[in-house]
Amino acid sequence: MLTPSSYIAGRWIPPGASAQVIESPVTGEAIARAGSDELDFGAAVEWATGTGGPALRAMNIHDRARMVKAVALMLQERKEELYALNPLTGATRKDGWIDIEGGIMTALTMASKARRGMPDGAIHLDGEVERLSRTGTFLGRHIAVSLRGVAVQINAFNFPVWGMLEKLAPALIAGVPVIVKPATQTSYLTEAAFRMIVESGLVPEGTVQLVVGGTGDLLDRLGPQDVISFTGSAATALKLRANPRLLAASTRFIAEQDSLNAAVLGPDAGPGTPEFDLFIKEAAVEMTVKAGQKCTAIRRVIAPAAHARAVADALSARLADITIGDPADPATRMGALVSTGQKQDVAARAAEIAAEARLAFRHSGAPAEGAFAAPELYLCDDPDAARAVHDTEAFGPVATILPARDLDHAARLANLGGGSLVSSLFTHDPDIARTYALKAAAWHGRIYVNDRDSAAEATGHGSPLPHMIHGGPGRAGGGEELGGVRGVLHYMARTAVQGSPRMLSAITGEHAPGDKSHEGPAHPFRRDFDALEISETILTGPREVTLADIEHFAQFTGDTFYAHMDEKAAKANPFFPGRVAHGYLILSFAAGLFVDPAPGPVLANTGLNGLRFRKPVSPGDTIRVRLTVKRKTRRTEDYGEVAWSVTVLNQSDEPVAEYELLTMVARSG
Amino acid sequence: MLTPSSYIAGRWIPPGASAQVIESPVTGEAIARAGSDELDFGAAVEWATGTGGPALRAMNIHDRARMVKAVALMLQERKEELYALNPLTGATRKDGWIDIEGGIMTALTMASKARRGMPDGAIHLDGEVERLSRTGTFLGRHIAVSLRGVAVQINAFNFPVWGMLEKLAPALIAGVPVIVKPATQTSYLTEAAFRMIVESGLVPEGTVQLVVGGTGDLLDRLGPQDVISFTGSAATALKLRANPRLLAASTRFIAEQDSLNAAVLGPDAGPGTPEFDLFIKEAAVEMTVKAGQKCTAIRRVIAPAAHARAVADALSARLADITIGDPADPATRMGALVSTGQKQDVAARAAEIAAEARLAFRHSGAPAEGAFAAPELYLCDDPDAARAVHDTEAFGPVATILPARDLDHAARLANLGGGSLVSSLFTHDPDIARTYALKAAAWHGRIYVNDRDSAAEATGHGSPLPHMIHGGPGRAGGGEELGGVRGVLHYMARTAVQGSPRMLSAITGEHAPGDKSHEGPAHPFRRDFDALEISETILTGPREVTLADIEHFAQFTGDTFYAHMDEKAAKANPFFPGRVAHGYLILSFAAGLFVDPAPGPVLANTGLNGLRFRKPVSPGDTIRVRLTVKRKTRRTEDYGEVAWSVTVLNQSDEPVAEYELLTMVARSG
Repeated sequence: MLTPSSYIAGRWIPPGASAQVIESPVTGEAIARAGSDELDFGAAVEWATGTGGPALRAMNIHDRARMVKAVALMLQERKEELYALNPLTGATRKDGWIDIEGGIMTALTMASKARRGMPDGAIHLDGEVERLSRTGTFLGRHIAVSLRGVAVQINAFNFPVWGMLEKLAPALIAGVPVIVKPATQTSYLTEAAFRMIVESGLVPEGTVQLVVGGTGDLLDRLGPQDVISFTGSAATALKLRANPRLLAASTRFIAEQDSLNAAVLGPDAGPGTPEFDLFIKEAAVEMTVKAGQKCTAIRRVIAPAAHARAVADALSARLADITIGDPADPATRMGALVSTGQKQDVAARAAEIAAEARLAFRHSGAPAEGAFAAPELYLCDDPDAARAVHDTEAFGPVATILPARDLDHAARLANLGGGSLVSSLFTHDPDIARTYALKAAAWHGRIYVNDRDSAAEATGHGSPLPHMIHGGPGRAGGGEELGGVRGVLHYMARTAVQGSPRMLSAITGEHAPGDKSHEGPAHPFRRDFDALEISETILTGPREVTLADIEHFAQFTGDTFYAHMDEKAAKANPFFPGRVAHGYLILSFAAGLFVDPAPGPVLANTGLNGLRFRKPVSPGDTIRVRLTVKRKTRRTEDYGEVAWSVTVLNQSDEPVAEYELLTMVARSG
Repeated sequence: MLTPSSYIAGRWIPPGASAQVIESPVTGEAIARAGSDELDFGAAVEWATGTGGPALRAMNIHDRARMVKAVALMLQERKEELYALNPLTGATRKDGWIDIEGGIMTALTMASKARRGMPDGAIHLDGEVERLSRTGTFLGRHIAVSLRGVAVQINAFNFPVWGMLEKLAPALIAGVPVIVKPATQTSYLTEAAFRMIVESGLVPEGTVQLVVGGTGDLLDRLGPQDVISFTGSAATALKLRANPRLLAASTRFIAEQDSLNAAVLGPDAGPGTPEFDLFIKEAAVEMTVKAGQKCTAIRRVIAPAAHARAVADALSARLADITIGDPADPATRMGALVSTGQKQDVAARAAEIAAEARLAFRHSGAPAEGAFAAPELYLCDDPDAARAVHDTEAFGPVATILPARDLDHAARLANLGGGSLVSSLFTHDPDIARTYALKAAAWHGRIYVNDRDSAAEATGHGSPLPHMIHGGPGRAGGGEELGGVRGVLHYMARTAVQGSPRMLSAITGEHAPGDKSHEGPAHPFRRDFDALEISETILTGPREVTLADIEHFAQFTGDTFYAHMDEKAAKANPFFPGRVAHGYLILSFAAGLFVDPAPGPVLANTGLNGLRFRKPVSPGDTIRVRLTVKRKTRRTEDYGEVAWSVTVLNQSDEPVAEYELLTMVARSG
């Protein structure tokens, strides 16, 4: 008998008198007792905000991302312990892969995205500097800082590990401590993974807590700096979000709730096309993976009316092939629903759909006892009049075919779901893809297009990827998770900062244009990564750009564009006063002015961002270069990236070119 | 007598039997009758979504931004008609400047920001392409499309013109029709500006409507594709956002409500410093501009305890200098509150504050009749224990001085407001600015730092700028407006799109990496802006990069970095196999390969984005270039910007450099 415990304020609290017995969905045997008696949520919030928050904020964004990566790698090492529990939930090993390794990969990707897309500092920078004044003494910038509260993350039963990790990773990277509340039914699997995290010692005290059982008065203790992230039913979400205290405090509430996801077969993709076959295959997979208990599963199969019968036949044939049974048996393709309660619920919802649609197929091989459900396929003849097919989510292997007159009708049917997590489209015609996207995108959090070109690598209609946002409008909850840095920002406060360049540099940790720069103790190419200071600068000596230089460069490179070679033609160009130097000649001469040639800490020029040519350079003009340390980002133990703000000036001190130069620079020691 | 009308479904509806009489806050005379009898909100929503939405979506983002610009310029032409009504609200001409010309400038800036930061197409692109597969046949991207509903924009009485325009501009640019609901008290001024917009014919039918009076059942008609943007009291916001239908539909609700904004005097900024003087000056201005009826006004004046008395004295002296009276009189510095009702409300709130704080100053020059309020300054001895000073917003010229022990205490006091729109800091010490920002940023939508360096150009504690977000957490409503493109996106749906490169190009209107490119009918430099097609490509012939080239380039440019010149030293570098070509040599040779030299539509290379050197080029390597039309943006009637995706390949077809090249290209005709 498993006894998942809560973990509150650093103490494990085992199941109490109020715990419920959880039965195996396969055998009906009792497998766990779960549910803590009244927990001290005051202590939980206090431990999170008083101990966990400060500990996380003492690290910077990249340090926290590294911590999340370490947690994920630790779980990867111990994954077989989690797979051992997985069949108890009714899930096959393949289902468990989505949950366990999918969760680990999600955490790894979020950590990697954060390190690539966020500063190596305490503060995230959102967008570029805003010039708010004529001479540049007053600037603006948007920053994002860690919220000062706690994230309460309420997860659904279907993905006990992924559900925890996909929410935990962004919150911890953002610097916000977390209270995880798994669904009680599968809490033992969440608890096993959670316990590994606590035992690993990889996360500071106060940063993670676990509630197995009810949330009591927890939500009433939250305020403006807290975040609730909820995955579950629309009814529960509505109850929680209507909490007057949360509404009054404008507490962030991220919901991912019901979704009647639609897969659409393009008008071009009739039987015999690769897209038709892909459509049938994905529909069958998305109906039956995890026994259809996926918030992104396909519930509505929208096909051109002419092909509806062919779709029904092909999909039925494919579904008939599926072996249903013990999830621990490697031969099983589809396991059980999570509980007999869920089985009854799915049957009740399917009955509502059956009132508006005909049964096209019912699998005959589902074991009678336990929580096994038979895949069912319906065909709805009047999908415009029907309501249940668009409103009623049977959270199991149940889908309905909806015939569409044309693409516009297909989009309207898809949108009738009132907001979904994902809609897929199977087409090989880019015009159809664009038309569908324009008609449907506002109603679906994700549009997944698959065709013969992407089939081999497409990740599937039902797979939320950490790179992309996951969520949807309306019925789907109006929330958004993941999407790389976007997902981290849900746990940070975006603030507009205004002040002088000097103040902006200090606050953001990045050199602001106009901040009075200072010379370092040596040429910056002689200073290692750790020694270089933000705003450290050199201003090079001058170099004249002669007509001979321009002609020579043109001949050498082959770039004999008329603006460099022909005075009369150049004068006729609206942007040039006459012959001008090549932009790349200016860049090349600039490098010649600032590069220090001998071996030293600067290892390589890796790239360049946002180059703008501000003013033409005419023959006889003299240029010099200002090179300033703008931003530093540790990459490895051995080196880091230094971004330099480069301005090339002419003899009148006017900028002729501005850019951000990227270099790899060795670290000290 | 003014009779502001509603404008619903294309019809003007004058005040009805239920209209209220609005009295002059200066003379008490009746100046207007305002309020329509029951309006047909079903027809309003239908006109917006059935007529207005499609008309806006038939334009693209840049076209809509140009439309908003035209509206703003039209209002600029007619601004004196609005100034003529302005004193009726109690406001001076200077107050009116913030409202009228501030509103016009906000619309202009939003239009300009959208044209600079958003694509010239139907779909906004959020972030870069996400590579979701090993070989690149399956990609992801985030797009944003117009919401399909209506924006209901509920504004406060204090800025009848700015309040309308700052919400209207982003919604229209986003492609969402608007129903404007001004506060009845000053609705005649909103209506005057609104009527100019309708009369101008600059906006399509169905895109703007006006509700003077109650909103009846309007909110109950909204769903997942609609947006409510509310400015007003926290109590009203709470009532609206708790609407069960809105909660169930996850309808977006943007609130900007109460805010006890704090100005903080830095520990370094004692009497005698320029920052002290700036602090006093801004506090006095922010207390009295618009008679203190600004959601961003300074309500709490936080000063080091040692300087609290000096602040009280200096601020009192400055306030005493202010002339209060008829707002139409140019000599008047402070006009009236908007109504005698507001005057009573301010007095009642001030009384609550007075229970916890001592009166330090009260202006003696406010006229007794009408809605004139006397500036009042309080001093609170125990700001940790006090509640009213942090919770009670007297929406008039009332502020309280709070003494702070140190910077940490100052931040804690500022944060006690429970979330505000703006907190300012007056300091000349960048470390103080950074420390304060880290402690306070999560609690305030904007942090405004002012000092001697920025004073001449600083735009003021109380001025929301269209470039920067406006809003704040918690008590301030948790909403966000403006901030350039950020403000437009509140009216758009962000959707993740996945598919093959070809599908992504078609959906986004921008060439996706890996999309099979096609040759155009001529060299792209011979094709004008309008003729060039997305994904049109040339692949140039090859060029060998010799050791002689590298040595020559080094000598010519002066860039004799060892990685190009010294085989042994280069080999010791972790990134290079030996001597390599300069990055700028590769760029220069690339240009030489693809440039077509004779005069033609391509006018200038204006810049370059995201250059990355992927692989070193060694002596003897051969390069060629693939140049593909990535994105087109109209800039003027005569030319547009073409962004090219450039890949430099080596003899093994491996990319050695990738970048986006920007050019100006002449349009046809």
